[in-house]
Amino acid sequence: MTQMKLMKQTTRYDLALIGFGGVNRALAELIAERGDELSEELGFALRVVAITDLRAGSLVRTDGIDLAPLLAAAPGELDFSGMAGGSADPRNEWVIREVPADIVAEATFTNPADGEPALSHVRWALRAGKHVCTTNKGPVALHGHALKRLAAEYGVSFEFEGTVLSGTPVLRTADRLLAGARVTGVEGIMNGTSNYILGRLEEGVDFSDAVKEAQDAGYAEADPTADVEGFDVQLKVAILAHEVLGATLSCDDVAREGISRLTPADMRDAAAQGLRWKLIGSVTRREDGSVDARVAPVALPLEHPLASVGGPVNAVAFHTDLLGTVTVSGPGAGRTETAYALLSDIIAIHQRHGTGPVAPAAAAGRVLQEAFRD
Amino acid sequence: MTQMKLMKQTTRYDLALIGFGGVNRALAELIAERGDELSEELGFALRVVAITDLRAGSLVRTDGIDLAPLLAAAPGELDFSGMAGGSADPRNEWVIREVPADIVAEATFTNPADGEPALSHVRWALRAGKHVCTTNKGPVALHGHALKRLAAEYGVSFEFEGTVLSGTPVLRTADRLLAGARVTGVEGIMNGTSNYILGRLEEGVDFSDAVKEAQDAGYAEADPTADVEGFDVQLKVAILAHEVLGATLSCDDVAREGISRLTPADMRDAAAQGLRWKLIGSVTRREDGSVDARVAPVALPLEHPLASVGGPVNAVAFHTDLLGTVTVSGPGAGRTETAYALLSDIIAIHQRHGTGPVAPAAAAGRVLQEAFRD
Repeated sequence: MTQMKLMKQTTRYDLALIGFGGVNRALAELIAERGDELSEELGFALRVVAITDLRAGSLVRTDGIDLAPLLAAAPGELDFSGMAGGSADPRNEWVIREVPADIVAEATFTNPADGEPALSHVRWALRAGKHVCTTNKGPVALHGHALKRLAAEYGVSFEFEGTVLSGTPVLRTADRLLAGARVTGVEGIMNGTSNYILGRLEEGVDFSDAVKEAQDAGYAEADPTADVEGFDVQLKVAILAHEVLGATLSCDDVAREGISRLTPADMRDAAAQGLRWKLIGSVTRREDGSVDARVAPVALPLEHPLASVGGPVNAVAFHTDLLGTVTVSGPGAGRTETAYALLSDIIAIHQRHGTGPVAPAAAAGRVLQEAFRD
Repeated sequence: MTQMKLMKQTTRYDLALIGFGGVNRALAELIAERGDELSEELGFALRVVAITDLRAGSLVRTDGIDLAPLLAAAPGELDFSGMAGGSADPRNEWVIREVPADIVAEATFTNPADGEPALSHVRWALRAGKHVCTTNKGPVALHGHALKRLAAEYGVSFEFEGTVLSGTPVLRTADRLLAGARVTGVEGIMNGTSNYILGRLEEGVDFSDAVKEAQDAGYAEADPTADVEGFDVQLKVAILAHEVLGATLSCDDVAREGISRLTPADMRDAAAQGLRWKLIGSVTRREDGSVDARVAPVALPLEHPLASVGGPVNAVAFHTDLLGTVTVSGPGAGRTETAYALLSDIIAIHQRHGTGPVAPAAAAGRVLQEAFRD
């Protein structure tokens, strides 16, 4: 027991946070406010040694960044350039490749076209022998298989639970808790914004007014296309197809239709038949072994497990042979919820690699710390 | 890769099945019909070396029981006494303690008063250095903490996912996938029979007729008391209180009220107010750290995540600080579904202990096989 305690206190992971928007900032808050408690519970400590951000620049302190002052500053006003170890330049490549860290937490914006720059961030990190956790759908949906191979090649982990339903455990439910059962299909409500808008249509609000409401409430972006036209869900379906059904497909193979053609009248017509429109992402294994992957509005019977999933709640249903349908529902967004996904990724990394000695990052730390004062 | 494959083929667990009713029989079917495939996927093989059953007697073949003939026989007509290695006497204690097996799968009937004889079965197995998986609520609800300590003392695992929602992963969702978040409360629909009956009441069927329908459909026992008066859920709430909230309480500490006083009129009155009656088991941490644990009918708003969980589907909602509410729903009963819970327990045992050499059971096997021909 004493030895366990000792081990708990000596395992520590040094983190590099790439992107310091809502998600990585919430992760930093978790570490600052709850680090000791998490360390006691989880058996490892977390220390942030580098942060890069498009606007704030980069900050490297290999003896550990004091997070409190950063978190006290308003997000938009953060400027690393005047701080010790700071620079106005994000210098992502240099930080990811050269700063000694055990884990790189990638949380920059999602680019659905080519996944960049996040794709390069992930590659640099894996090739530098660093574990990667990310909430960024782009690299995973577009190059998930290749990045996992790369991680395996370098003996590190590539984790991305937060790419589907923020911190709600979906990928790990399939991977860890449904092992031995055959998942024959997955379907889900995976976009809170479109789900909110559908709820407002049901209440008689026109589509454009509902979008505006969602924007005012902070659910929808200034350009709501990714949410309402199904592009966001398309990426998630590709990830589920890869991870849960082992399929190899590109995002273009996921048929896509959004909700912008639906009206309050469609909602009323459906309700009259005991149905409710939902934007459903699904992937199903066909008899011949290939998969059908799509995102489209579907009028579900009210007794369908996804029909009552409302507002910001998201859900994924796994259809299996031995267990029938198992559904996991929970938040699909939110900065703390998504930061929790990164924490759950770090826990997974610890479970897989944590039996070894303390990470080598610390040793090289001070040398670099000096070298970095340029 | 070759080495991985080799390891997969050499790890094998020898099982003793205690109780050969629906659940362990379904586990035997899984092993017989899908053993090779599971072995390939999961990295270990399963072999049944002993079966005991109140009616069929006991059967011990330390070189492995041929399951096909047993599964071909009608359940009620199985008689081990005439078979090689068989006896008309179940001889549970001797089989559990003395027959070399790695894992004991306990699936006898649940006794909510004192947990016997399952409690003794579990104790014997753990003290003999055997892992235990069980779907039996009695020992876990009444003596879960003590049995887990016993397992730790003997360096073995005690797993019981199937005691709450059959194979739907509930305990492992909390333990593995919500680590780092604080679970402040758990509530669920954990009895399919009462849930079915409530659904029929909603359709205007009287309580006694609904119970009879449930009996005719095979959902309810001849004596439906355990289901409709909340005793079954009471045990499950105690298990969730122990396992998810770390509370120490007895089943008597779980306040209990069943559904037998509800009428179709109550259902209509609730519906008129946008509510729906459900039998809810819940455990909530109070401000002072103590827990409130209860099972009672609750009129839920229709938008509550549990309000739309109908018929044989069960669900458990975890209320957490970092993630809000995460809900897992799926089957709450069924022989294959519950056998899957045992398989998931065995996977957990393998993940924790599977890195060692092949279990020692095989070595001592043949000697005993001979000694057993009495």
